[in-house]
Amino acid sequence: MKNIKKILIANRGEIAIRVIRSAKEMGISTVAVFSEADRLAPHVKLADEAVCVGPAASAQSYLVIDNIIKVCHDLNVDAVHPGYGFLSENAEFARRLKKANVILIGPSAESMEVMGDKLAAKKAVATYNIPMVPGINEAIEDLALAKKVASEIGYPVLIKASAGGGGKGMRVVEDTEGLEEGMTRAISEAKSAFGDGSVFIEKYIGSPRHIEVQVLGDEHGNILHLFERECSIQRRHQKVIEEAPSSIFNEEKRKAIGETAINVAKACNYVGAGTVEFIVDENHDFFFLEMNTRLQVEHCVTEEITGIDLVKEQIKVARGEKLSFAQEDLKINGHALEVRVYAENPKNNFLPDIGKLITYKRPQGPGVRVDDGYEEGMDIPIHYDPMIGKLITKGATRKEAIARMSRAIDEFQINGIETTLSFCKYAINHDVFVSGNFDTKFVDHHFTPEVLDTGTENEEKIAAIMAIMALSETNPAAVSTHKSSKQWKARNSYR
Amino acid sequence: MKNIKKILIANRGEIAIRVIRSAKEMGISTVAVFSEADRLAPHVKLADEAVCVGPAASAQSYLVIDNIIKVCHDLNVDAVHPGYGFLSENAEFARRLKKANVILIGPSAESMEVMGDKLAAKKAVATYNIPMVPGINEAIEDLALAKKVASEIGYPVLIKASAGGGGKGMRVVEDTEGLEEGMTRAISEAKSAFGDGSVFIEKYIGSPRHIEVQVLGDEHGNILHLFERECSIQRRHQKVIEEAPSSIFNEEKRKAIGETAINVAKACNYVGAGTVEFIVDENHDFFFLEMNTRLQVEHCVTEEITGIDLVKEQIKVARGEKLSFAQEDLKINGHALEVRVYAENPKNNFLPDIGKLITYKRPQGPGVRVDDGYEEGMDIPIHYDPMIGKLITKGATRKEAIARMSRAIDEFQINGIETTLSFCKYAINHDVFVSGNFDTKFVDHHFTPEVLDTGTENEEKIAAIMAIMALSETNPAAVSTHKSSKQWKARNSYR
Repeated sequence: MKNIKKILIANRGEIAIRVIRSAKEMGISTVAVFSEADRLAPHVKLADEAVCVGPAASAQSYLVIDNIIKVCHDLNVDAVHPGYGFLSENAEFARRLKKANVILIGPSAESMEVMGDKLAAKKAVATYNIPMVPGINEAIEDLALAKKVASEIGYPVLIKASAGGGGKGMRVVEDTEGLEEGMTRAISEAKSAFGDGSVFIEKYIGSPRHIEVQVLGDEHGNILHLFERECSIQRRHQKVIEEAPSSIFNEEKRKAIGETAINVAKACNYVGAGTVEFIVDENHDFFFLEMNTRLQVEHCVTEEITGIDLVKEQIKVARGEKLSFAQEDLKINGHALEVRVYAENPKNNFLPDIGKLITYKRPQGPGVRVDDGYEEGMDIPIHYDPMIGKLITKGATRKEAIARMSRAIDEFQINGIETTLSFCKYAINHDVFVSGNFDTKFVDHHFTPEVLDTGTENEEKIAAIMAIMALSETNPAAVSTHKSSKQWKARNSYR
Repeated sequence: MKNIKKILIANRGEIAIRVIRSAKEMGISTVAVFSEADRLAPHVKLADEAVCVGPAASAQSYLVIDNIIKVCHDLNVDAVHPGYGFLSENAEFARRLKKANVILIGPSAESMEVMGDKLAAKKAVATYNIPMVPGINEAIEDLALAKKVASEIGYPVLIKASAGGGGKGMRVVEDTEGLEEGMTRAISEAKSAFGDGSVFIEKYIGSPRHIEVQVLGDEHGNILHLFERECSIQRRHQKVIEEAPSSIFNEEKRKAIGETAINVAKACNYVGAGTVEFIVDENHDFFFLEMNTRLQVEHCVTEEITGIDLVKEQIKVARGEKLSFAQEDLKINGHALEVRVYAENPKNNFLPDIGKLITYKRPQGPGVRVDDGYEEGMDIPIHYDPMIGKLITKGATRKEAIARMSRAIDEFQINGIETTLSFCKYAINHDVFVSGNFDTKFVDHHFTPEVLDTGTENEEKIAAIMAIMALSETNPAAVSTHKSSKQWKARNSYR
């Protein structure tokens, strides 16, 4: 067993704090690194030691492998936790740490490389009979071949530019009649947009859900799954609300997707915590998308329903320990929901809304957890991802988790910037979300900025309270948050 | 089924907030009451409506039944939650509410009265074969009778003054030889102290633990138990650290004490959430002490291990609903620990240390819950119980719950007053606590104020950070929490 006495966290914000907490609970000391912009950040204060690794820009600080390895040497660091983002899926970083004799709390460079490349990943999992979205592996421009392929896949199909991105050069074709026109236009659009007319053809999934499975492997060949997370509520193709378990799977489907995820992890000899992502269609059939070879932002909902601290498990695995539980020991307890609190304006296309957290008061109470990286009075720096933190609720049932989230969002007081909380409150209470029958198009289909305009009730309440507070300075006994005159009358009823 | 649309919480502080949160999650509106001293308290702000019911002194505000019932009428309140303390076990209050046609979220006046009187309680449970500490039911002064009784009970026995309290007139007698002297002295002490020489004799339990069982009954005759809570760590005969489950019970004992608690509740036709308290001896045999006919401060640890929101269950039962689960549906998941954060000085005999919460930053992260009633900048009023709040941690194991509590206490920043946190940190990490083999005499046997003197490390760290912060004003890149010169050197390693 490898001894880990000191961990450096090569990250910032809530995930750096998340790792520090688990390390502290294991009696392991911690080293924070920070950019000049983060010198007053909570992760710096919480760590036992902290070292500045460069200017604000990530490319000059958090992403500079040399600087981080130098700190490891200078401070006798045994292991590095990369968090998510930054260097977390960087195979070169993994190799450099190995060479420097520092343990990476994460998978091998080889696992990262295989899963970081879509074609390599496809190849690796080929022997495991993993369901994939039906389609061709090579980009084509030939119409006759396209017709053959499309009829094999079955309509509707999606034509997408080989060099494309952001929806450009994408086209849904319903039948053979539409294919010729679709191909011609897609190729022409792709040529003019990207200078490359070749396209892929694959099965079109009309109502896609994004569901992923948490896996955990050790160095002794054991790989388990910790059930699925539903991540279909997204804005700008980025997750914003997640939950566990998914409300659409029965036991059989849950077992099947879990075992598939384990096979994907086996295909790349996975060690540590990883996530296998799937696209799920309207029949609840799932298809492998990709594997993320790191801890996810939304790992907390899995922790809440399983009672397992995933960061501690990562550290134990990195020490060379065997997993201390078997698949059959894992049980789902209750339901967990997570909303991401981004400094973004949902009324303005979710664009970042950077500024100062003038008021920042977190919700509390049973079943509420806040993992964040800021304190009241701090500025959200422009240099990084605008996520302030995550609000997680757990309930005995999905219904309770939603009610608790709604209550917790009401309790969360953030002034100074706009956040995604108002959108999340709207979304989790929307009939479509409550029913469980939603897909990744929820925002497109069910959200317009106007729906948030009725949400000013809270602001009115705050204004009312402020007015009352002012009043109370002169008449202490008259404090009341009553709004109607009838209620006001009652306020000194004891006299 | 009775309709409850609006609940008044006849309490203050953390328990008022606790009730408001569950009510909000159930879509029920809330009315806070407050004294003049509490006009800026968080429970006032969190409720939908709030009414001042009198001056600071509880006897003139929170305890004035007329004022509270008037508010119920004025604001069309359907039900009252009394919290704990104040009017929560007041049978007259229960009767007055019934007369006023307001639902009390709690048991009947009759249940309160039976369990509020030790002799009535003993009588009520007599048919249920409930184990009690062996002893006599009547106070005596007669030596011959004392000898007969003591030899029936078996030595050692405890002689205690009928009119006594606070340990006065209490005397442990080891054998027949000691009994005569013991009786003579106890009677004489009792006479001089209380003017009444009569004494009780009962079995002396040398190493007592305080263990209690949470019960929940509905109006349809169903009564369940939600396992036990270990509450033996006390200071000044008051609980300060609690946990669930108890680390000394096996499944058989757990079942036995649970069923005994259910029988006690049955004996008084109990409806709602209640707690049956037991004294447990060194052989882990348990004896019924009393029943608390209300929610307990420490109910949270039960919520954490069962996943059940006890306040919601109280409200559902008050609506006339049947319990939605059976005994066999209840399972223990993990281990939960609670420490009470009192504004008290553990270095000065746990005397209240009232003042302003100059700094008040709560711990966060996985498995951490804070239920409190204050905000940074607030004064702890002198008029009420000095409990600021409760820090609760949950882990997969007792070991993890302890490690998490230790980490959470370190993270809890309170400046301006002394609190019980330093004592709690010491206690939970003490070998005796960790082993599970402790009793209610833990503080007497294992704590002296001096043991906290080594706990200044944290203060030193804060001072170091402050110094660094000051420094950083002139040299932003040099911020570091390093303490050794070697570590300081590394801080600008990227240059």
